[in-house]
Parts: sequence; C-alpha cells; structure tokens
Amino acid sequence: MQLTINSPMDMHLHLRDGDMLKTTAPLSSHYFAAAIIMPNLTPPITSLKQLVSYKKRILEAAKDELFEPLMTLFFKNDYDYAFLEKAKPSIGGIKLYPAGITTNSSAGVATIDSQSLKKTLTAMSDLDIPLLVHGETNGFVMDREREFVAIYEELAQNFPNLKIIMEHITTKDSVDILNRYDNLYATITLHHLLITLDDVAGGKLRPHLFCKPIAKTNKDKEALLNVALSAHPKVMFGSDSAPHPRSEKEACGCAAGVFTAPIALQVLAQLFEKHGNLNNLQSFVSDNAQLIYGYTPPPKKVFLEKKPFIVPKTYGDVVPMYAGQKIEWSIVDVN
Amino acid sequence: MQLTINSPMDMHLHLRDGDMLKTTAPLSSHYFAAAIIMPNLTPPITSLKQLVSYKKRILEAAKDELFEPLMTLFFKNDYDYAFLEKAKPSIGGIKLYPAGITTNSSAGVATIDSQSLKKTLTAMSDLDIPLLVHGETNGFVMDREREFVAIYEELAQNFPNLKIIMEHITTKDSVDILNRYDNLYATITLHHLLITLDDVAGGKLRPHLFCKPIAKTNKDKEALLNVALSAHPKVMFGSDSAPHPRSEKEACGCAAGVFTAPIALQVLAQLFEKHGNLNNLQSFVSDNAQLIYGYTPPPKKVFLEKKPFIVPKTYGDVVPMYAGQKIEWSIVDVN
Repeated sequence: MQLTINSPMDMHLHLRDGDMLKTTAPLSSHYFAAAIIMPNLTPPITSLKQLVSYKKRILEAAKDELFEPLMTLFFKNDYDYAFLEKAKPSIGGIKLYPAGITTNSSAGVATIDSQSLKKTLTAMSDLDIPLLVHGETNGFVMDREREFVAIYEELAQNFPNLKIIMEHITTKDSVDILNRYDNLYATITLHHLLITLDDVAGGKLRPHLFCKPIAKTNKDKEALLNVALSAHPKVMFGSDSAPHPRSEKEACGCAAGVFTAPIALQVLAQLFEKHGNLNNLQSFVSDNAQLIYGYTPPPKKVFLEKKPFIVPKTYGDVVPMYAGQKIEWSIVDVN
Repeated sequence: MQLTINSPMDMHLHLRDGDMLKTTAPLSSHYFAAAIIMPNLTPPITSLKQLVSYKKRILEAAKDELFEPLMTLFFKNDYDYAFLEKAKPSIGGIKLYPAGITTNSSAGVATIDSQSLKKTLTAMSDLDIPLLVHGETNGFVMDREREFVAIYEELAQNFPNLKIIMEHITTKDSVDILNRYDNLYATITLHHLLITLDDVAGGKLRPHLFCKPIAKTNKDKEALLNVALSAHPKVMFGSDSAPHPRSEKEACGCAAGVFTAPIALQVLAQLFEKHGNLNNLQSFVSDNAQLIYGYTPPPKKVFLEKKPFIVPKTYGDVVPMYAGQKIEWSIVDVN
C-alpha cells in the first residue's frame, strides 16, 4: 500500500538551537514542506533581529530548499501595531505562553484576558496575525487545560476576528469549544492521539512520553481522534516534537517533551489506515492548515509505503517515540 | 523542641532481599520497633519455609534486638485452614495483590470478591489473621483506587469479622469508607501526606516520587491529612518505603516506589508539628497499630529534636525522598 502526501506541514515544532538544531532541523525539513517554529528559546524570540537570525540558522541546518520555517514571536504585551505591522511579513503567528507553564516560558504572560492584552491582541486582529496559545493554567496538572477553556472563550468572544489557535489540545473540553467559536482552531500532536496518562505513569514511568500538556484520559484521546481522523476543518497536525538531550529525559527531574518529528508521518499513516481514514490524512497534515493560515507551502511530495521501519534508538542524543521499535509505514521517497 | 516516640512501627515496609536488604534493613530496624514486611519478592513469599528463611535474613541484616519484622504471606487462593492455623504464629497478616498491579505482583489474584476467595478468607476470619490489601483495579491510573472501593465494601460486608487493612490509601473515597465498616482499617504513607500528582508530573517529571498507587489530587491529600493528623483510631502509619536501585528509578522505564524509611519519623514530626498535632504522632506511628493488630512491639524509645538534618543524597544505591535537602527534625538517640 502506498500513499503520497503533498506538502505536509508541522504546525507546532520545537527545533531548539545550537548543536541540537543541527540534529533536529534536517529531521523535519526533509519530510515536511513547512513548519511553525516555536520561539521558546533562551532568551525567547521577541525581536525581529533575533527572529531573522534564528530563521537563518534553521535554514542553514535544514539543508532543504523545499522547506520553509514559519517563524513565530514570543508574545509580549508591549508589542504595538507599528511593530507588528513591520513583523507581519516575517512571521506565521505569535505564540502566547502563560508564565512558567513549560520549557523556557518564564518570560510568559501572567494574566491572560482580553483587557490585559487588549493593545497587542487588537493590533494582531487588525493585521490578521494568528495567536497561537499554550492553553494551560497553573492548576492541578490534569485540570490545567480544562481550566483554560474559559480563557479561550473570553478571548474568542472579545476578539471575534482574531484567529486563535489552541495549540496541542489534549482534552475533550477543548475539542468541544472548537465548534462554538468561528475563530477558534486547534493543533493536535501525534502522541496525544496515541497515549493517555496510563502510558506515561500507569505501568512503569516513561520519561520519553512525558510532555506538556500531560496526556489525559481515554475519553479525551477518543475526542481528539474523532476530529483528527475525520480531518475536522479546524484542526491541524502540529507535532509539538520537543527534543531534549537524553540526559535531561532520563534524570531526577525529567524535562517535558516527546520527540516525534522524524516518525510522525509514518505513524500518522499507520494510525489513519488502522481507522480506515487514510484519505483524510492529506487534510490533517496540510490542507486544513493551508486554509486556516492562508499559506501555500513549497511543493513537496512525500511518498510513503506500508512496509516496516525500525525506528532508530536515538537521533543524535535524542530518544524518539517508538525508539528501537517497528512501525508499519516507511517514507520511501521525497521530491 | 524535643519529642520521644515509644516503639514506632512501620506497618507497610518493603525491605527487598540480597544486597538491597543489607542496605535497607538497618535503616528501618534502628528507628522502628517493628514493621510489617511485604512479601512481594521474586518469587513471592508463599510458604512458611520461605517466610522463616526471609525473616532470618532480615534479622541478620537488621542487627537490632529491639526490632521485630512482622512477616506476611503473599495471598494465594489455595491457603486452607490447616495451613493458616500453622502459619498464624509466624505472621502479622496476609497481603493480597491484584495480579500485575505493582512490583513483583504478577502472581497476584485475578478476581477479587468474597465468593472467589471464600475458603481462604473464611479461614483467615476464623483465625483472626488480618487481610492486607493493595486496593487498585487495572483501570485508568488516577481511578484505580476509587474503582476498588466497591471491592473493599463487598469484602467488608461479607466477612464482618475479618480485619481488612486498606494499604497505602491515597484517596478521599478510601478515607470515606473507613467509618462505614467496623472491620476496615488503613495504612497511610508519608509521601501521600505530602505530595500530589503535581509533584510527580506537574513541573519536571520526578521519578523518585513516582509510586503506586500514584499520588492523587489536593482534595485527596487533605482527606488523608485529616485522618492522619487527628490520629483517627483506624489509621496507622505504613511507609510503603520501597527502594529501587538508582538505575531503575532514573531510566527509560522507572520502577514505582518512594524510599522514605530513614527519614519518615523526622518528616512526620515536622509535618505534625507544622499542623499543631505533634501529640497525635505517637498514636499514628504506634498506638493505633498496636490496638488494631493486638500486638505489643519491643520497647524502644526514639528521641527526636527539632534541629536541621541534611538527608543523604543516597543510602547505598538508593535515592531517598528529600535527597540532599534539609529537613527540620533529627533523630538524636534511640534506646
């Protein structure tokens, strides 16, 4: 069985920087035509100078002319219209982090509501710049996303022309509000379509499956699968592939993030085929995002075939999901 | 500030075997007068010969004449009255594990209800041998203990004269049924009085706080604190101190268990003092258990003082809770 995907896009990707970037960039750039690049470096990307420089480093490491990194700025409440107007041609969106909620997010926003963020969100709405949101409160780990739903709703109501992307949603509650507001969209990762908290902490503890937001319940996973497999027009694939050196994953205090970029398309093909929805994969991994973002990626064809692939135990110093295991689909060609 | 505890007992303890036993046994025997020793070795302790031999190894490693290991058998459905009558003088109770629920429990019981276990539970009831239960189903990790409540209730109703100890309870639901059945009792660990899932997986992932049952919500922790601090007469301290080599904790698949034995009394003193309940600690760590088990431990006095103690980073190859951190109370003498 074969499958061709046209210009797959990863709408939520962490490439990091420095040596790690040299490992991660080619693993995405060879299989994807474009990706939304998250700005939570140290320090975070908050100026155009940083952004342009980071994009240059990504392109150098990516070594693929048919890959475009769609850059993002780290949301700051002091971005004004003039700055954003100047930034717009260089960015795919702006990423809002609640302060301290995940890797390198200590400079994030403490109070998230339409009044507190009015100036910047009004400008973004007027300029049609998408707002990408890590939607978690600082509450109990299993409730953080559910508690954030009210914040999504308040923002969606008060900025009806602002495109709000609920990033890496993990709960049925988030799925449920998708249809209630025209301007709410979502990315869904690969791993949240596959695992629940049971896989992370139900048997032995699996640090390589530990991520933020943490994997939830089976009911939540089913709700995510439902909209992903049907390629609901408001959902997009975003891997949230988040590499950490092995030493930071298998340690006393394990960093959050699952590394899926190099195996995402193959495992998605396996998942969609298993559920009889293979013909929806193109929309989930590219077409929906093109429509939502109004963006046309470089023309790239990725050819997959249903034949076994043994996932490497590591890529550089990073342990991927399914490390050392056999998956059912392979990428056989890209052009 | 000073405190003397008379004959503290740890009513749920894993000492393991072999080299690990040589590390763990003295760390409990020097500070406790007695402890209920869990039988989940490989293979589990199911015969008196194994039990007597294991007790001998414990006593040799413990090197403390004022410490008595109260041995337990690993529940098997084929134990009959004759066997149990013979076993009774050698055991403190029998530990029932649902099959596969925790470390070395694959030989546990698949179906737990009064009909399936009738022969053995009737004999235990007649002989007044306590039933110690790891009360978790194989369900979703956060729901396992809650789902087991109905099983506790069914057993308690059908064997009203059987002492049933709900081991290491972690939820408000378990606390709530304590008062509904005369024959239900509970042990509570130190760590479940201190942590929730947020501490395990809310920030970075903390393998040394990963345990079974997994730490639950703040509401659950408050319910446990409520009965522990008030020294509710049906609850007893049981550390569930569960050592694993560091290599099995900081790894791809981290084993479940928190190692608290050598710091438990000090941290309990700190916790009870903080809440103004220091005068209840004696009941929680000894008197309640003496009454529930009808057992008088060796006379041992443990003298604590409120002065800082830096917890070692490791004991042998085992990383304790609060490794390298300062706690507020110290053990200053034992006699």
